[in-house]
Amino acid sequence: MSEIKISINMLNTNEEIHEENKNLFDEEGIFVINLMSAPGSGKTTILEKLIPKLKQNLNMAVIEGDLYTTKDAERIEAKGVPVVQVNTAGSSYIEGSKVREASLNFDLREIDLIIIENVGSLVSPAEFEIGEDIKLCVLSVTEGNDKPLKYPLMFEKSTAIILNKIDLMQFTDFKEEEFYEDTKLLNDKAKIFQTSCTKNIGIDELSEWILEQVKRKISSHK
Amino acid sequence: MSEIKISINMLNTNEEIHEENKNLFDEEGIFVINLMSAPGSGKTTILEKLIPKLKQNLNMAVIEGDLYTTKDAERIEAKGVPVVQVNTAGSSYIEGSKVREASLNFDLREIDLIIIENVGSLVSPAEFEIGEDIKLCVLSVTEGNDKPLKYPLMFEKSTAIILNKIDLMQFTDFKEEEFYEDTKLLNDKAKIFQTSCTKNIGIDELSEWILEQVKRKISSHK
Repeated sequence: MSEIKISINMLNTNEEIHEENKNLFDEEGIFVINLMSAPGSGKTTILEKLIPKLKQNLNMAVIEGDLYTTKDAERIEAKGVPVVQVNTAGSSYIEGSKVREASLNFDLREIDLIIIENVGSLVSPAEFEIGEDIKLCVLSVTEGNDKPLKYPLMFEKSTAIILNKIDLMQFTDFKEEEFYEDTKLLNDKAKIFQTSCTKNIGIDELSEWILEQVKRKISSHK
Repeated sequence: MSEIKISINMLNTNEEIHEENKNLFDEEGIFVINLMSAPGSGKTTILEKLIPKLKQNLNMAVIEGDLYTTKDAERIEAKGVPVVQVNTAGSSYIEGSKVREASLNFDLREIDLIIIENVGSLVSPAEFEIGEDIKLCVLSVTEGNDKPLKYPLMFEKSTAIILNKIDLMQFTDFKEEEFYEDTKLLNDKAKIFQTSCTKNIGIDELSEWILEQVKRKISSHK
């Protein structure tokens, strides 16, 4: 019997840690976003653009996932919000236990929003819940419109999808209509934002939407 | 003791399958390339451009890795070379056993070159040898010049690195000099090609280099 118990516990570990994290964040009234994409889609740059807008209205913190470096965390720190770096030492997603550990570095009573920038991959990060309220995923137009059908899980599980680098669309063969058809097929509830960080397109809209989600949770918490 | 043996065998499985595949391909005088990159860096498009040039000079086949779809395999088949699709059902790399299985669909005595297009990821595909002679990796400039240091293993292990979509460099903040410095730091022997598939830049040079590698193996085999 004890062996079976151990086995069940091991199978449930990820899910259990997700629930524990979620309970902690719910108790503290913190909204948590799991931000995911392939490497180089622009997650960190989007965060750099969002932070100045978001922090005018709420207290936020960032957990930065990276295989080995602190490059992204340094960029976020420069924006003046608390940031904790999680190095996954080669693993292609952040584990829930690492999110828990990282979050204990923040003064959780003061925080309204934590954004977790996951490791750059269209596969593993979508497979594990780590305590988040919602998942956001980013696809840049230079990656091609075929990616939602090729890597469906991330698009299926995301509450919103950010189509980034739209200023470059004219130089690519990205088929916008197919992208919308495919994502609708996978996830007809997902909200889709179009952004360009170099041309400052769509950042206000995205920031306001995030603010609404956070406020909804905070108000239901009080 | 038998438990230890099982444990050792399990640890060696990937390596053993790599060796078995490598022996098979060596016996048949086939040069094998493991082509890797993040999703959307342009692996399939590079292949579409390379195949017409390569197949004038040798007999080639392609193994296409994808989580679920056959989209890329259909694009390669249209170029008139034998192709086998490997669906990894959610796994972010092709296993050596699947390469073996796929390769047995080809008439190996007639083949000089097999290119394996791995699943789009900068992490897992670099961790496993699957029977290849060399690894090639692709980075597109739109992904950013910070990727070699952030995902070092793939760049460390590649015999050549293809810097793709260089026609878009002027629209990005890609720092070319830093990219060359960082890759040199990780792997000072890697040959670096600059390519643009839309502007047909660098494809001839890349194709000629591949041809040289294949011919070297074929001539040493005879």
